[in-house]
Amino acid sequence: MIPRYTRKEAAAVWDAQTRFKIMFEIEAHAADAMAELGVIPKEAARVIWEKGRDAVWDPERIDDIERVVKHDVIAFLTHVTEIVGPEARFLHQGMTSSDVNDTTLAVQLSRATDLLIEDVDLVLAALKKRAFEHKLTPTVGRSHGIHAEPTTFGLKLAGHYAEFQRAKERLAMAKFEIATCAISGAVGTFANVAPQVEAYVAEKMGLAVEPVSTQVIPRDRHAAYFAALAVVASSIERLAVEIRHLQRTEVLEAEEFFEQGQKGSSAMPHKRNPILTENLTGLARLVRSAVTPALENVALWHERDISHSSVERGIAPDTTIHLDFALRRLANVVDRLLIYPENMQKNLDRLGGLVHSQRVLLALTQKGLSREASYAAVQRNAMRVWRGEGNFLDFLNADEEVTLSDAELEELFDLGYHFKNVDVIFARVFGEQT
Amino acid sequence: MIPRYTRKEAAAVWDAQTRFKIMFEIEAHAADAMAELGVIPKEAARVIWEKGRDAVWDPERIDDIERVVKHDVIAFLTHVTEIVGPEARFLHQGMTSSDVNDTTLAVQLSRATDLLIEDVDLVLAALKKRAFEHKLTPTVGRSHGIHAEPTTFGLKLAGHYAEFQRAKERLAMAKFEIATCAISGAVGTFANVAPQVEAYVAEKMGLAVEPVSTQVIPRDRHAAYFAALAVVASSIERLAVEIRHLQRTEVLEAEEFFEQGQKGSSAMPHKRNPILTENLTGLARLVRSAVTPALENVALWHERDISHSSVERGIAPDTTIHLDFALRRLANVVDRLLIYPENMQKNLDRLGGLVHSQRVLLALTQKGLSREASYAAVQRNAMRVWRGEGNFLDFLNADEEVTLSDAELEELFDLGYHFKNVDVIFARVFGEQT
Amino acid sequence: MIPRYTRKEAAAVWDAQTRFKIMFEIEAHAADAMAELGVIPKEAARVIWEKGRDAVWDPERIDDIERVVKHDVIAFLTHVTEIVGPEARFLHQGMTSSDVNDTTLAVQLSRATDLLIEDVDLVLAALKKRAFEHKLTPTVGRSHGIHAEPTTFGLKLAGHYAEFQRAKERLAMAKFEIATCAISGAVGTFANVAPQVEAYVAEKMGLAVEPVSTQVIPRDRHAAYFAALAVVASSIERLAVEIRHLQRTEVLEAEEFFEQGQKGSSAMPHKRNPILTENLTGLARLVRSAVTPALENVALWHERDISHSSVERGIAPDTTIHLDFALRRLANVVDRLLIYPENMQKNLDRLGGLVHSQRVLLALTQKGLSREASYAAVQRNAMRVWRGEGNFLDFLNADEEVTLSDAELEELFDLGYHFKNVDVIFARVFGEQT
Amino acid sequence: MIPRYTRKEAAAVWDAQTRFKIMFEIEAHAADAMAELGVIPKEAARVIWEKGRDAVWDPERIDDIERVVKHDVIAFLTHVTEIVGPEARFLHQGMTSSDVNDTTLAVQLSRATDLLIEDVDLVLAALKKRAFEHKLTPTVGRSHGIHAEPTTFGLKLAGHYAEFQRAKERLAMAKFEIATCAISGAVGTFANVAPQVEAYVAEKMGLAVEPVSTQVIPRDRHAAYFAALAVVASSIERLAVEIRHLQRTEVLEAEEFFEQGQKGSSAMPHKRNPILTENLTGLARLVRSAVTPALENVALWHERDISHSSVERGIAPDTTIHLDFALRRLANVVDRLLIYPENMQKNLDRLGGLVHSQRVLLALTQKGLSREASYAAVQRNAMRVWRGEGNFLDFLNADEEVTLSDAELEELFDLGYHFKNVDVIFARVFGEQT
Repeated sequence: MIPRYTRKEAAAVWDAQTRFKIMFEIEAHAADAMAELGVIPKEAARVIWEKGRDAVWDPERIDDIERVVKHDVIAFLTHVTEIVGPEARFLHQGMTSSDVNDTTLAVQLSRATDLLIEDVDLVLAALKKRAFEHKLTPTVGRSHGIHAEPTTFGLKLAGHYAEFQRAKERLAMAKFEIATCAISGAVGTFANVAPQVEAYVAEKMGLAVEPVSTQVIPRDRHAAYFAALAVVASSIERLAVEIRHLQRTEVLEAEEFFEQGQKGSSAMPHKRNPILTENLTGLARLVRSAVTPALENVALWHERDISHSSVERGIAPDTTIHLDFALRRLANVVDRLLIYPENMQKNLDRLGGLVHSQRVLLALTQKGLSREASYAAVQRNAMRVWRGEGNFLDFLNADEEVTLSDAELEELFDLGYHFKNVDVIFARVFGEQT
Repeated sequence: MIPRYTRKEAAAVWDAQTRFKIMFEIEAHAADAMAELGVIPKEAARVIWEKGRDAVWDPERIDDIERVVKHDVIAFLTHVTEIVGPEARFLHQGMTSSDVNDTTLAVQLSRATDLLIEDVDLVLAALKKRAFEHKLTPTVGRSHGIHAEPTTFGLKLAGHYAEFQRAKERLAMAKFEIATCAISGAVGTFANVAPQVEAYVAEKMGLAVEPVSTQVIPRDRHAAYFAALAVVASSIERLAVEIRHLQRTEVLEAEEFFEQGQKGSSAMPHKRNPILTENLTGLARLVRSAVTPALENVALWHERDISHSSVERGIAPDTTIHLDFALRRLANVVDRLLIYPENMQKNLDRLGGLVHSQRVLLALTQKGLSREASYAAVQRNAMRVWRGEGNFLDFLNADEEVTLSDAELEELFDLGYHFKNVDVIFARVFGEQT
Repeated sequence: MIPRYTRKEAAAVWDAQTRFKIMFEIEAHAADAMAELGVIPKEAARVIWEKGRDAVWDPERIDDIERVVKHDVIAFLTHVTEIVGPEARFLHQGMTSSDVNDTTLAVQLSRATDLLIEDVDLVLAALKKRAFEHKLTPTVGRSHGIHAEPTTFGLKLAGHYAEFQRAKERLAMAKFEIATCAISGAVGTFANVAPQVEAYVAEKMGLAVEPVSTQVIPRDRHAAYFAALAVVASSIERLAVEIRHLQRTEVLEAEEFFEQGQKGSSAMPHKRNPILTENLTGLARLVRSAVTPALENVALWHERDISHSSVERGIAPDTTIHLDFALRRLANVVDRLLIYPENMQKNLDRLGGLVHSQRVLLALTQKGLSREASYAAVQRNAMRVWRGEGNFLDFLNADEEVTLSDAELEELFDLGYHFKNVDVIFARVFGEQT
Repeated sequence: MIPRYTRKEAAAVWDAQTRFKIMFEIEAHAADAMAELGVIPKEAARVIWEKGRDAVWDPERIDDIERVVKHDVIAFLTHVTEIVGPEARFLHQGMTSSDVNDTTLAVQLSRATDLLIEDVDLVLAALKKRAFEHKLTPTVGRSHGIHAEPTTFGLKLAGHYAEFQRAKERLAMAKFEIATCAISGAVGTFANVAPQVEAYVAEKMGLAVEPVSTQVIPRDRHAAYFAALAVVASSIERLAVEIRHLQRTEVLEAEEFFEQGQKGSSAMPHKRNPILTENLTGLARLVRSAVTPALENVALWHERDISHSSVERGIAPDTTIHLDFALRRLANVVDRLLIYPENMQKNLDRLGGLVHSQRVLLALTQKGLSREASYAAVQRNAMRVWRGEGNFLDFLNADEEVTLSDAELEELFDLGYHFKNVDVIFARVFGEQT
């Protein structure tokens, strides 16, 4: 992971100490279950917890051992023996390395996802606050980057709120996908470890039991997990791109908060750049880049091969850490966003009323003109405005085919007309009539 | 889509006639709702249905019109007017093209997903049948491509069954993601079309209402959809790769059905190649390739841009059609798979009992030898077997540190020991004790 | 491929007739070489050419045969026998299907690349024409979407020209990568076909000899090929995005040509949307989506498996056809782009001279003020302009720390200053002093 | 990057000290050029070098400053002032941050690529050594995982050698793509910095001049760079997958070196797993995952946005470091690969001569039997062998339609026949007749 895009809470999920602590807990819970089944002495299990519960593991020592044995879990167990003493020989009976590694990964991904869900809640809170502030702030809706019709800034934000609600559901689903425990032995047959051990460890670690593990937990789960995170990243990108557009010099309807002492450019002191949202755009690309390798990890050979492991050593921490950072940054950007309603109004007025072309079109068809003739009449006058020849309303008034009175036309240019259903949409999104 | 990987049922979802029929229905249902609200004459709505319900639309005519107006929905509506007559002018009032296009796409993707779910059911049925046939057929479990411990062929298939159950859930979830209806007008404000129209059309077309559409249905939904299909494709690949491995000349534990008249190679008449599962491997890559563009489609500009459209014209039909084909092919391959239990047994015996090394290890530790010493003892004798020096059991008997009696060792080499929990796993997967 | 994004010249490369003609030529040239070596009768080779040279092959017949034999090349050869007669039995001696298929693909990809290079030439010509037209048209350079310093519209286009020159080189290199011929027999050992046959066919088909083929031409070549096309697609996207930005209502410095009869929106008759460049943005995503499956195709098993085939049936035609279409469309968009220098000037003036902040900064440091103090002085006055409090020049004049005379300041605000090296850059790009 | 997949030589390219040293050199060389042009005092340039040439920069101090100014290059320059003194104010005149950042990245990527090319040389050397050792070691060629015809193990390796020669060329080309220098000022117009400065710095840093930079070096270059690395990664995967296949228990024609003290499995002491090549398979996925974000980085907005930066902070070090590690590991695996010719022979004999089916087919057609009848005759007897009914040669002798004498048949079963062109292929690849 990239240090500058890393929160310490997210990094903590992935540090060596956390990992070894989880590994120990899995082994020790398994020992408890085996002791209960009479497979190992209860006293051994007790001593293991006593000596290991609050142990500080030594990652460097474990690395040293691994350099000799070329096997990470054996290196860990050897170190556990150094700390816990001879009772450690009762650990890991009938288990395989993947039982520990995969279940540890499940715990880490679950915890990381809990952070991500908290983060999305912050984004949602910021969006909701700003959406209600600007529920009726008029702004132009743009399709294809071109002025279309009026909308409100609150509606824009409500749309993103709804999208992040879906993001939250996707994260919950993603956690559900990967939060499983496998303690099933060498090729998943429970030959040397009873299914009860798995059930016990699963419950203690807050996981479900994996129905069929073949030494490993099947990697379709992880592919689905990283795919879900990638979709969340794209939702971040959509909001980031929106803000970048709004901050463009010619638009300037909103702006990232610019702190005291901040410098926009080493060369041009006048600059105020949307660097946070540009950064989020890049982070979204990084997070998404985990999808393809995660999909390629699914088709492991037979009961397992270990090709997935190096991939996950990279993408599991990197993707969750960067997404955590991005969501926090996004929440902050939205929360402190400088919003300029007067510029929104100025932009809305820029085309001299062209944004009302559809209403004129509909009014003409309702007067009995064919759709095609109505369209042609409105387009003909609109194009004159684009060419800078004058004012839309004047042209319409002067056009003989446009059989609408002055009063009728004026009413068609009323902005409020567009906002009559804002309450309906807000109720759909925020679940309340406000 | 590639014709040879296209079933006609799947292609039918995407042909022009189907598309125009759905578009007409959306417009006509909207007209009904508008008539009910008094926005357009009820008689108009009635005539529209009467003339249009069973109309055969002329895609070439629509293409011709589009070449002039450069707009697909306007071209369609113009053609509808040709068929339905002047009442067609009451269609599409206050609606925007995306209302029709996006809702049509939602209907098409929903229908395509229904096919995919049916296909997965076929895969599941085939896997279940073969899993029960071979519930207790011994075969070697392999990790890293190397013999590990015994398992059963039924267990292998049960693992894939569980994965395809997840695939089915993912498809159901994917359908839920994209099955929404938007009839909200130019920038999604319902300025010129009432929310009731949307609700009515949604219900008639079997869709949910999109909470906030900004002219378009937000594309995070479609990204999630294609991501789900990609995960399913990877699950296909995993099973296809398994079969390819099993059919290798040196392994030959299973084989794709080889039809009369089939030729394996133009040059080598003796060949019987796993070409169907190799083909599935390739199709999985193709289906997965939709994920990245679908993710890139999310961040549309402001209320919408149309960059997503060309992408979806490609990936929506191609991905669903190829996945449908792949699932059907997979179901057929599994259903007719030639399975060779005697070869499985032969392979299982190949290492002269090395697959029992873990049991010996555990027995030694239970005799009080340290884990490290036990491991060294077993490994030392196993390596002699790898070097072709003789038989594992003999070496163990001869090793002084291996304090196990002949009888004890023999029992440790019992195959049945590994299958005692097959019932437990089958019950987890198939939900029954059999 | 998607019909609406398909030029017939590009489609022709991939139609069945072309493919069978190339396959026949490869087989017939090989027959010539074998006849020369005395392996088959010269008369047979003569008859094969006589009967086959202008034959019209029947794809449906070949499909019918393939349905029985389940092998595409055997089906083709059987059909050739139907047309050519008994001499056809001398064809394909010692060859394997991949010799024909892979070499045919090499020819098709080569021809497709020739089209792409022609297309890039059109893009280059359009860019060059417009670059020289607007060599000195002032426009604002934007970093982060924010006004930075003045540049010229010609310079913008020169940058894209240089990028498309690189695109052309990448396509030439990509063609070099895949233009190889393999006629090496079953596993590439030339056991039953002499290397001379390969050399002869290669020369006749305009290809290089593949140094080592293992039945197939190695797929790292194709991966490199599709990767090159993906980079070209991204260059298209960059220019498309630039134009979309320039056409935004608030910017309107350039606009796609809008044809007579064209409709921008079914609902809003005033719209003029950059739909061509949005479409190009989407097509770029489609073309890029071939990279991942092409990379996944590289690691075929042992001497070959056929998983690459279904992938290539999709991506080879689709990617080249869509890229061809996109490049042509881009050339046309650039060639006919409506460019509005007066709007560029208006936008340039929008910030009241802030774009000159760097020159003021440099002048202050040259007067002996520290860089930090100079930066602070300029930024402080610039921020007042952003806040809408007044004019940059006035503020600078009034600032005591800004020890620059009126004349000095005025000179610092001279636009021409920025264009003094345009000739230098143009000479680098277009290779001439103009 | 992942520490366990990091060589310190590769990490050194990317550490903070290296980066700041390169940044200083770029700034100081630029100062020299400016001094030569009379823009700044020569004495200042001299002092800058004197104080800065061997300076040890303080990354933490720079981070602290950045936390205030929110700008990385300004933070660096502030720190330079702390070390170099007041002359530092003459640095960076007329330059923009990207001039330094992008040129620094070009230097780092160039150096990283030099390492990669060295690594490929090691792979090539190992492949060549082993290829010549086993130039004539018979082994079965496999298509579709099924025995096809005989080849030699040397030929297999020669194919990979040729592929890594292409990898080397691709890396050289990739370096050429990104080794450019931009010192062109705020939006690339050289308004405040002369083109001569750029030319001077480029030469001193071993780079070419970027023809048109728009503040940034265009990102199509970097996309092409990471795409090239991805293709190299796939070539690694192909060889890794080959070795994994060869090490499968049933095949066992080659094996990764297994070190003293190494443990294959925590549970199963008998295991010897191809974990290095499985790891390489995973690393290939990781390296490839940089392609998509690199392609997405190309379409920056206008003269630049900074979305590429966070992506490159991840992929530039990670991808080059992991690829460096993977290539070294691969060279080592190949160099020490345990190769078992006797097992190759055993596997070759497994099908009782079926691998000679093509020769029999050709012989029959040369005897005048039609291709179809010949094929049917050979296939019919081959299928009996597959069914385990007996020996291929016996069946052929007994088949009336097979009009080949015993002597003829025996000759057709001669292995040496397949190796007659090995020299030809080796000469193509290794450029010598041996």
